[in-house]
Amino acid sequence: MREITAEHLPDLARGAAVLGAGGGGDPYIGRLLAQRALGRHGPVALVGVDEIDDGALVIPTAFMGAPTVVLEKLPAGDELLAALRAVEELLGRRATHTVSLEAGGLNSMTPFVAAAEAGVPLIDADGMGRAFPELQMLLPTLGGVPASPMALADERGNAVVLRTADNVWAERLARASTVEMGCTAAVSLYVLTGRQVKDHMVPGTLSLCERVGRAVREARTERGDPVAAAAAVLRGRLVFTGRISDVLRSTRGGFARGTARLAGLSGDTGATLELSFQNENLVAARDGEVVVSVPDLICVLDTDTGEPVTTETLRYGLRVSVLGAPCDPRWRSPEGLALAGPGYFGYAHDYVPLSVTDVG
Amino acid sequence: MREITAEHLPDLARGAAVLGAGGGGDPYIGRLLAQRALGRHGPVALVGVDEIDDGALVIPTAFMGAPTVVLEKLPAGDELLAALRAVEELLGRRATHTVSLEAGGLNSMTPFVAAAEAGVPLIDADGMGRAFPELQMLLPTLGGVPASPMALADERGNAVVLRTADNVWAERLARASTVEMGCTAAVSLYVLTGRQVKDHMVPGTLSLCERVGRAVREARTERGDPVAAAAAVLRGRLVFTGRISDVLRSTRGGFARGTARLAGLSGDTGATLELSFQNENLVAARDGEVVVSVPDLICVLDTDTGEPVTTETLRYGLRVSVLGAPCDPRWRSPEGLALAGPGYFGYAHDYVPLSVTDVG
Repeated sequence: MREITAEHLPDLARGAAVLGAGGGGDPYIGRLLAQRALGRHGPVALVGVDEIDDGALVIPTAFMGAPTVVLEKLPAGDELLAALRAVEELLGRRATHTVSLEAGGLNSMTPFVAAAEAGVPLIDADGMGRAFPELQMLLPTLGGVPASPMALADERGNAVVLRTADNVWAERLARASTVEMGCTAAVSLYVLTGRQVKDHMVPGTLSLCERVGRAVREARTERGDPVAAAAAVLRGRLVFTGRISDVLRSTRGGFARGTARLAGLSGDTGATLELSFQNENLVAARDGEVVVSVPDLICVLDTDTGEPVTTETLRYGLRVSVLGAPCDPRWRSPEGLALAGPGYFGYAHDYVPLSVTDVG
Repeated sequence: MREITAEHLPDLARGAAVLGAGGGGDPYIGRLLAQRALGRHGPVALVGVDEIDDGALVIPTAFMGAPTVVLEKLPAGDELLAALRAVEELLGRRATHTVSLEAGGLNSMTPFVAAAEAGVPLIDADGMGRAFPELQMLLPTLGGVPASPMALADERGNAVVLRTADNVWAERLARASTVEMGCTAAVSLYVLTGRQVKDHMVPGTLSLCERVGRAVREARTERGDPVAAAAAVLRGRLVFTGRISDVLRSTRGGFARGTARLAGLSGDTGATLELSFQNENLVAARDGEVVVSVPDLICVLDTDTGEPVTTETLRYGLRVSVLGAPCDPRWRSPEGLALAGPGYFGYAHDYVPLSVTDVG
């Protein structure tokens, strides 16, 4: 167990946004919300998965919706606790712990808000090892854990509780409510036992986020290469450096969808990289050839500062470096690829695991 | 108290579809569902509002959605009980009674299903004295009764529970879930005490439906005028007789919307009537001039048989008679008109109460 205070948050949020692979929300907003909660309620206890009992009652929270909208419609913050409490009320039991569902600038910070407000420890883990756009895309789904009972809450006091036939129906019905609530909602779902956290989640994600965030900051301070530093911690590799020449973005069906085109610089001069995204970066294609594909991570960083660039902040003229990083090996199984592989997102290419022979 | 058996259902369903003013669902499907439930569970006790205690716990149910879709996607039937039970579970109490929310071929029959399956008496009343397309449009809304806690259930086992900021938010969030569930869902909402039923609902609606249905049947058997018989019971009047020459219909946003044009016959030869509807008939305009307008009832009947014609069964060539009938006087108050008057539906005309000096 370690205590997380406000001073830990900047590295954590930065690293979480890198692991968010373009999605998972804005790290600045995530950090502000967590800072405010820690300021009001004191530090949060971060515990390892090996420190929790198998019988622990773990209730996660997150924000759902289009990250483009979160930028304009700041969460009030107490929707998260409202969603958590709605699930507790259904179960007739209080959470003993909470946990992050995905790695992301917002959604790895909001669990600190929920932990601080509910007064429970936060488990150092997440459900994906990255961020994904749809809520059934969690390793616990592969492990047979139901997403529902699930609650959604908004800033007006509306609450929606779902019990669904399966996790895809949870996504469909929750997305419809989220869109109606104005394209963002606080959600609480995937109630887990301690045992299920150990069996089906990715351990150590928040510590990994912190190491990535710290590596970027230290490399910057020491005039080193922050992008290379992030790649080393992620065991990934640089796949492209370029300037954003084109961004096509629309917010449809509760998602931020689009493509961005990068004109190569340095070693990539003359080449073009196209990024396709649905909240998260899904495919990176160099001169028409896929070089990194979902479920592997495609992380866009500001080349100079190493700051993560989420899909909603991609903009013309920005000089960026694109990293590929391997996903959790469970995503590479046939079941994992069926749930969140390129075919699910409508791409025709087969998934080829990222080559990381040239790590570093 | 009287016992309702299967033999009472045809008159009840027919009359309910007349009062449904074009909406409220198909009387044939409503009757089939009720027949099956009564066959399985025995007769339903129908009680007057003066027979219930002020402290009764009354939980209504209904089907929500576009009636055009209900015709193609028959309800399984047990979704109603699932929705009712979900509300009971939230309250931690069992319903002592159930009641109809609206008059309509489907939605005045489904309460018999819920009453039979839950084994509780059905109160002879409804929440509108007609049917309306949106769920906040109930007299209990005018009386300050919240629509939520509310539950929706579908045939796949999905259940959604809402606690909303107000009754318009209940409509918005429930509509979004209904659309996602395939444009129809069973709902349970407007939990009422016995006192609230007495204060805010329309007493005797089911008996009135039965009288209308019986009058039509008897007039037909006796080679009388079934349309005039219905008008007399409703204290309304015939406003037009004609042949349907044009129907424009679309199912959008979970509603069946459109217009129908009638070419006049008999005394109306040479004139045209245009009906505008959103699930229910909202406005009848004769040669461009509004003759009946929501919240008054516009009921379309087959001229020969007096059978009600719902908006989803309007079709080219049908010879129909259009009745106007006065709404419950509470709908004519400024608050009632704000909730369900022509302005709410986007019409520019002021509401002029139907003239019924020429009753009969």
